[in-house]
Amino acid sequence: MVNWNNLDTLASFQTLTNVKEVDLKAAMTGESGADRVKRYSVPMAAGMAFNYAAKKVDDDVLEALAKLAEEAQLAEKYKELYNGAVINTGEKRLVLHQLTRGQLGEKVVADGVDKREFYVEQQKKFSEFAEKVHAGEIVNAAGEKFTTVVQIGIGGSDLGPRAMYLALENWAKKNDTLKMEAKFISNVDPDDAAAVLNSVDVAHSIFVLVSKSGTTLETLTNESFVKDALKNAGLDPAKHMIAVTSETSPLAKSADYLAAFFMDDYIGGRFSSTSAVGGAVLSLAFGPDVFAQFLEGAAEEDKLSMNENILENPEMLDALIGVYERNILGYQATAVLPYSQALSRFPAHLQQLDMESNGKSVNRFGEPVNYVTGPVIFGEPGTNGQHSFYQLLHQGTNIVPLQFVGFKNSQIGTDVVIEDSTSQQKLCANVAAQIVAFACGKEDENSNKNFEGGRPSSIIIGDQLDPKALGALLAHFENKIMFQGFLWNVNSFDQEGVQLGKVLAKRVLAHDTDGALKEYSDLLNI
Amino acid sequence: MVNWNNLDTLASFQTLTNVKEVDLKAAMTGESGADRVKRYSVPMAAGMAFNYAAKKVDDDVLEALAKLAEEAQLAEKYKELYNGAVINTGEKRLVLHQLTRGQLGEKVVADGVDKREFYVEQQKKFSEFAEKVHAGEIVNAAGEKFTTVVQIGIGGSDLGPRAMYLALENWAKKNDTLKMEAKFISNVDPDDAAAVLNSVDVAHSIFVLVSKSGTTLETLTNESFVKDALKNAGLDPAKHMIAVTSETSPLAKSADYLAAFFMDDYIGGRFSSTSAVGGAVLSLAFGPDVFAQFLEGAAEEDKLSMNENILENPEMLDALIGVYERNILGYQATAVLPYSQALSRFPAHLQQLDMESNGKSVNRFGEPVNYVTGPVIFGEPGTNGQHSFYQLLHQGTNIVPLQFVGFKNSQIGTDVVIEDSTSQQKLCANVAAQIVAFACGKEDENSNKNFEGGRPSSIIIGDQLDPKALGALLAHFENKIMFQGFLWNVNSFDQEGVQLGKVLAKRVLAHDTDGALKEYSDLLNI
Repeated sequence: MVNWNNLDTLASFQTLTNVKEVDLKAAMTGESGADRVKRYSVPMAAGMAFNYAAKKVDDDVLEALAKLAEEAQLAEKYKELYNGAVINTGEKRLVLHQLTRGQLGEKVVADGVDKREFYVEQQKKFSEFAEKVHAGEIVNAAGEKFTTVVQIGIGGSDLGPRAMYLALENWAKKNDTLKMEAKFISNVDPDDAAAVLNSVDVAHSIFVLVSKSGTTLETLTNESFVKDALKNAGLDPAKHMIAVTSETSPLAKSADYLAAFFMDDYIGGRFSSTSAVGGAVLSLAFGPDVFAQFLEGAAEEDKLSMNENILENPEMLDALIGVYERNILGYQATAVLPYSQALSRFPAHLQQLDMESNGKSVNRFGEPVNYVTGPVIFGEPGTNGQHSFYQLLHQGTNIVPLQFVGFKNSQIGTDVVIEDSTSQQKLCANVAAQIVAFACGKEDENSNKNFEGGRPSSIIIGDQLDPKALGALLAHFENKIMFQGFLWNVNSFDQEGVQLGKVLAKRVLAHDTDGALKEYSDLLNI
Repeated sequence: MVNWNNLDTLASFQTLTNVKEVDLKAAMTGESGADRVKRYSVPMAAGMAFNYAAKKVDDDVLEALAKLAEEAQLAEKYKELYNGAVINTGEKRLVLHQLTRGQLGEKVVADGVDKREFYVEQQKKFSEFAEKVHAGEIVNAAGEKFTTVVQIGIGGSDLGPRAMYLALENWAKKNDTLKMEAKFISNVDPDDAAAVLNSVDVAHSIFVLVSKSGTTLETLTNESFVKDALKNAGLDPAKHMIAVTSETSPLAKSADYLAAFFMDDYIGGRFSSTSAVGGAVLSLAFGPDVFAQFLEGAAEEDKLSMNENILENPEMLDALIGVYERNILGYQATAVLPYSQALSRFPAHLQQLDMESNGKSVNRFGEPVNYVTGPVIFGEPGTNGQHSFYQLLHQGTNIVPLQFVGFKNSQIGTDVVIEDSTSQQKLCANVAAQIVAFACGKEDENSNKNFEGGRPSSIIIGDQLDPKALGALLAHFENKIMFQGFLWNVNSFDQEGVQLGKVLAKRVLAHDTDGALKEYSDLLNI
């Protein structure tokens, strides 16, 4: 039996507030620091590891966090979720994104369908479709092969798939598995669609329209934009478009598309990268095998998340430390800092994943909570960030916990030796140096050059950013956020906060406004 | 006589803490809201306006802010700065980036040189160079025209110029003034340079090496990367590279470059977009005339910043409201939300500009301050952000002030009518709707659908994002940040917080490590 209680009602949370705060600077200095780096590490899938030595934890804090995990029933709640309970209470829905990549528990039947079978069937369908496109069996009206795939979607239909594409584009080129270049249209700003269309050869492009409901206004608008461009080029849009949607949407059985692939209401947009939402475009871009490896990495990480021992469960541990930082240490933001240019848009995806899931003020029963929930998430790749906002992270008046990611090897492998080291070694040296600089600081007589230290970070280290590692990385953050939602007792799977803006925008477009809204509309010439 | 005092020692700041907090929801509802939108607006350069109706201010707060501006001597301090005082006290340097676009006050002579003349001369030099490249007078070894320009730089030599290029790329295409495509290499991650080099035709590319000191390790490493690529293609690097640096740097008189253009120590990297750092690449990409218009917009905004009346000075007012939000209302972050896809990287540039300038814990005399300084800055273009992190902004447990930007017209002009409105109208309707949704909220019996409102925002509205508007927008934020630095009494023009990481990274590369640093180095295979 699972109990859903607010964080501040848990005895173990009260205990945690009384555990002595770790002096990170002292702990990370000398032999103690070396010992922590060796001990405070959890293996992840794809040969990666989550190292939390530079977090403000010690064995006492970890023991208290373990008790919190137990009292909050994190493992049991995850089990409920993957066995098909109605975890999304607001919308009364199951939460099944993990089923797109593996079967963790019991068979889940919903709407009379075995959902694992359904997702596998969809994967098979879009895999076969992609293979036919690559083989030249599905071609344009002139009988020519398609060379480009353009995803039309917004939010979860854009950020995740785009970040994943960019993460693997160079890896795929290097490994001769880049089948088609991918582009993305998302913003309702007409310059977004126009610029992307100007940059592609529409006659050799397949467009993937992604909207679960089939009613997302931005996406349907951009679809029309694309159809106009196709018609203007003398092409038949129906021969250039596929749809990713739910079976009940108006797009599902339309003759306007070459094919339709399905997701369902049990997969939230921001958790849909491993469903057809990411699967169609990534399989077209990289081939179905690469997408399958990506799913494999995610599935392996999902399994690690089942572990009841927090010291063997990277996602649960990361989640617990984050809640400790947010609700006891009082930190308001978290920076995600991948030392990998390929992960340039991964922070933007996590920004949605985290802030849209846990940026809530009411618990899963709709009652206001008395504690802070999801933090602000932001980030850019290192080393670029070092030359930008790290100044504030090192010497600003607020402490921002940091989540580093680093890989031993580059994707392309071209490198140069300057001052006896490769660029890849410089990249890795920088992330190692930053962790220690943030944790230990450095005293200086000139207070302008003084670093107080005590600024916590963790790092995920992998061999190389390949499809499997990327899948594991994605699942790590998805599951971390899920566990944090359990701890805060919020519903991480709805997003009611996006509705009011939509309603008011419709009123503006219908010229049904008064007061301030009318004035702003006038100022903007609407 | 200018006095540099800490914010909390000012009587007007203490008075401000006692002014009644505005009930934003009530103020923005009905006729009061309409009245505020009309009244609370300041004209900016290039026909734009800064509208602060949805900020938590009223005439009482504004009066108190005006007194704070007076006591903090904001106008006088700006005057000191543009007349050539040593405002960057840490590095004992003048702060002259405004001189790159106009002469605001007295002649500034430093190192025996009239600095305005010096910057104008540099602009003339890179303009002439760009024109010769465009005219085919400067060509590659085969006598062919260059088609692409690639900037090699990091931090301020990358984020600003890159954001400005992206902001105007489509405008330039539409207005037939895109002379060369621009690309950027910044990260020491070897995959960054390798991917950019794979995407360009090196035989027809000019590379702009940007490093003020001529010693930035990431940039010199990437230069070698590029030189290897040129040599491997059988090309002479010296025929393909130009340098932007200071006159005293090792790059200044080197035969390795076709030409060198100069900046100096009085222009901080993050404030260098209007110097040769942005000027060379943007003049090559768009032509010198477009760059001149960009400077003109910035110069006009700089003049508005001179106004002593805060109600006629958009930068000073924005700065004061920001400090009120940070130090009295207690907000820790600010989101920058341009409703313009062309401004996709503008928030990343502001992130550096703001966080590196004011993320400090000591005042300009090196004494610790007792109040918070620069906030965390993050943002993405709307409408994309609406489908991502806006959930937290609307319903999260912490309030995040918002800075919107919107334009009445798109850049490319291609559009589509769906449900009786164009995409551009939908874009504008969304930003109008969001401001009101954040300010006024909406009560709902279902607390999950309840919006408490009271979440403050401002908006900068322009006709179209053209070079002049972009220049004004950039100068707005540069000057806002400068005024905030004056208020917090910090030195906004140094960045000592980036040094420690550099020192430790060098130790890692020299294998001169112990303790935690050695362990991390081992984990990362360095």
